[in-house]
Amino acid sequence: MKHLLTTNELKVEEIYQILEDARKFADGMVWKPEKQFFAANLFFEASTRTKSSFDVAEKRLGLDVVPFEALTSSVQKGETLYDTVKTLEAIGVNLAVIRHNQDRYFDELVGKIDIPIINGGDGCGHHPTQSLLDLLTIYQEFSRFSGLKIAIVGDIRHSRVARSNADVLTRMGAEVVFSGPKEWYDSSLNLANYSPIDEVIEEADVVMLLRVQHERHEKKGGFSAGEYHQKYGLTLEREKRMKQGSIIMHPAPVNRNVEIADSLVECERSRIFKQMQNGVYVRMAVIKRSIESIQGGNQYETAYSKRILHSI
Amino acid sequence: MKHLLTTNELKVEEIYQILEDARKFADGMVWKPEKQFFAANLFFEASTRTKSSFDVAEKRLGLDVVPFEALTSSVQKGETLYDTVKTLEAIGVNLAVIRHNQDRYFDELVGKIDIPIINGGDGCGHHPTQSLLDLLTIYQEFSRFSGLKIAIVGDIRHSRVARSNADVLTRMGAEVVFSGPKEWYDSSLNLANYSPIDEVIEEADVVMLLRVQHERHEKKGGFSAGEYHQKYGLTLEREKRMKQGSIIMHPAPVNRNVEIADSLVECERSRIFKQMQNGVYVRMAVIKRSIESIQGGNQYETAYSKRILHSI
Amino acid sequence: MKHLLTTNELKVEEIYQILEDARKFADGMVWKPEKQFFAANLFFEASTRTKSSFDVAEKRLGLDVVPFEALTSSVQKGETLYDTVKTLEAIGVNLAVIRHNQDRYFDELVGKIDIPIINGGDGCGHHPTQSLLDLLTIYQEFSRFSGLKIAIVGDIRHSRVARSNADVLTRMGAEVVFSGPKEWYDSSLNLANYSPIDEVIEEADVVMLLRVQHERHEKKGGFSAGEYHQKYGLTLEREKRMKQGSIIMHPAPVNRNVEIADSLVECERSRIFKQMQNGVYVRMAVIKRSIESIQGGNQYETAYSKRILHSI
Repeated sequence: MKHLLTTNELKVEEIYQILEDARKFADGMVWKPEKQFFAANLFFEASTRTKSSFDVAEKRLGLDVVPFEALTSSVQKGETLYDTVKTLEAIGVNLAVIRHNQDRYFDELVGKIDIPIINGGDGCGHHPTQSLLDLLTIYQEFSRFSGLKIAIVGDIRHSRVARSNADVLTRMGAEVVFSGPKEWYDSSLNLANYSPIDEVIEEADVVMLLRVQHERHEKKGGFSAGEYHQKYGLTLEREKRMKQGSIIMHPAPVNRNVEIADSLVECERSRIFKQMQNGVYVRMAVIKRSIESIQGGNQYETAYSKRILHSI
Repeated sequence: MKHLLTTNELKVEEIYQILEDARKFADGMVWKPEKQFFAANLFFEASTRTKSSFDVAEKRLGLDVVPFEALTSSVQKGETLYDTVKTLEAIGVNLAVIRHNQDRYFDELVGKIDIPIINGGDGCGHHPTQSLLDLLTIYQEFSRFSGLKIAIVGDIRHSRVARSNADVLTRMGAEVVFSGPKEWYDSSLNLANYSPIDEVIEEADVVMLLRVQHERHEKKGGFSAGEYHQKYGLTLEREKRMKQGSIIMHPAPVNRNVEIADSLVECERSRIFKQMQNGVYVRMAVIKRSIESIQGGNQYETAYSKRILHSI
Repeated sequence: MKHLLTTNELKVEEIYQILEDARKFADGMVWKPEKQFFAANLFFEASTRTKSSFDVAEKRLGLDVVPFEALTSSVQKGETLYDTVKTLEAIGVNLAVIRHNQDRYFDELVGKIDIPIINGGDGCGHHPTQSLLDLLTIYQEFSRFSGLKIAIVGDIRHSRVARSNADVLTRMGAEVVFSGPKEWYDSSLNLANYSPIDEVIEEADVVMLLRVQHERHEKKGGFSAGEYHQKYGLTLEREKRMKQGSIIMHPAPVNRNVEIADSLVECERSRIFKQMQNGVYVRMAVIKRSIESIQGGNQYETAYSKRILHSI
């Protein structure tokens, strides 16, 4: 049975397989499980974007989605995550997508739960489908990773995305550099890869901006929005100095005129909304992978071929 | 692409077309989009009634509904309405129903968003599907608008319904008069059309009661519920003096024994629950109209005919 | 039209019929209503477990589920339960599952509402689908009720389950005994049937533990969790003295190491997660029963046979 917990545990060939499936879904591939299949999206932290994206992915695959509201659940009566998931499993949920503010919450589930878990984000740690949709967006653009220079810019310490992405992009063959306020730099990352924004901007094939997480460190930084934008943000002026053919990415939601100038959010270089589109395809691919691991490989292969034929 | 933002912008023939489709849906017409189609209902103000009505309408048309909870959305992180809708569009939502407390919230969306928007109510301004369901209910009853006298009674200033309805009913050929507390009368309306409830009740073909919006002006009016009922409400005594064949309408939720005597809510003249039924049919018609405008007219006509044949 | 309000009103043969259908659903029976059918789950009290279970049951039967959030509904504007249900009925909801903290809330609905109501729990009173899933679990195990000794252990006074179950199990032919803190014993029950846990444990075929309802009487009891466990709970030591072939049940959510030792929750005797599975099948059976009562018996019989044939 295949969970998706972190990108670290995915081999390079597994990643390519997921990207390949995602690309097929973007091209209109139809794939559905062999029988009625229930998914539940357990979001213990607010996130319309990711939750809706999973919801659409699930429904495009023909899954039934069981509503789950953390706020009105028995978690309020003190129930553990394990008991909650085990309960959903008992009532017939076949796959759980979970976002939880505790780092590696899934460690208490794996091996004890009989349904696949897809990590929709844990603590400040991992957000594998976000990484995968970033990879898909880059791969669509350049058809490769090796030889690319990727700049990750911003609040690196608090970003799920920065850690997952730095690791996986390096493994895929890209060179990753960092920029942003030194106060928010992460000591676990290699300081040699740090450069000021004005250098980075001219060399990078991909500029990945991170969200300033106001809600996580309101009183710390001490930047005003305008200061941040001028010192570390993608201003109109900086965009003009970007390398030819290079692209802008951002996990969203965007703080307009903080990380990026308002009018650049939908500029020609921007792949921000493209990333959201890709999120659905990547999630479809990842869910398909988990379902196939339950249905059994061979059984699937034929079903898959049949369905593909059917959908032509 | 056809939005539905206000009734003002609908031509009379467009309105008749919507009413016609709604009537067909009431008679059992089956119509579905040509492929999987996603709707999202973005309700930034509480409303089970309207939200559930849209939900049922969407599901009767075979649409998939993406859950959206304003309270747990990224709007909480300060995201704009534009970015929220653009995000939903990117993840594959094909149609957005929006209720928002800001007047004309849709002005910042139209022309920049590539999916149809259906206004589920804005500020104190417009609530076009409510107007349309009122029209349908009247048309079902009298088969015409011209020559009818419609009395709108109650909290006119704070009512979305009063403004939309007054305008559109006049355009359809009806005569609209107003009644209720003068304190709540709206200076933008023609005072010549104002009459006391005891006069109005004997002449009107349709008595449209408005909800007393306790939650909007608790400290203003200074009426007790009983006083309001006696001075401006539809009492048992007043109902007896109503014109033969005339009907009672109310957008609900009803404050029983305030706007209307408890036992009149389901009396023979009352069309209050009929209005709710009609709400679903009107919403189906309005959604069909928007979907057709995307699918392309001709393409639709054949699909439509085919489906109708199919459903016979 | 058949509601499901309390188990008291179900005749023994009706109960067997529901259990029989539930067993068939557990064995893979496929049954669906004849046309599109809408259910709404109105939960005015928090409960993921029961709500999700109904949701899965409804979707397995092919029903469309209309989302209803009590917190954002017009109930917030003071609407009565009657008007809320009547509204849902008007917009096309065909069946309502309701949980409400008021005892016998359904008395104000029955006879005035034209759709079946399934009681998902009222006040401290009834929770018929919980009773039925308990019955199913016992029946699956022993294939009979007569001659069985069933011990209900714990917070009897505050438990919906205790009352419904005591009544119905007795009617089915089982002998019911009680145990737990005397402070929480209910004077309406026969004191002669009360025994200390250490006696009960050796004689019972079924030990039904009740949840300690912290949220209902936090300041009363005066037990610490550990004290409760030692005095009244199912400890590791007590489990060893249980009768051969006897089973453990609990309505969940479990307070681990209070009502039951942590490691016993999933022990061989435990049917706790089995109960949750059965909950879905019992709810499918109960919903089918209500739908059939609307569709008309004979009409159903043929449809049913056809569908069964179809599903083979």
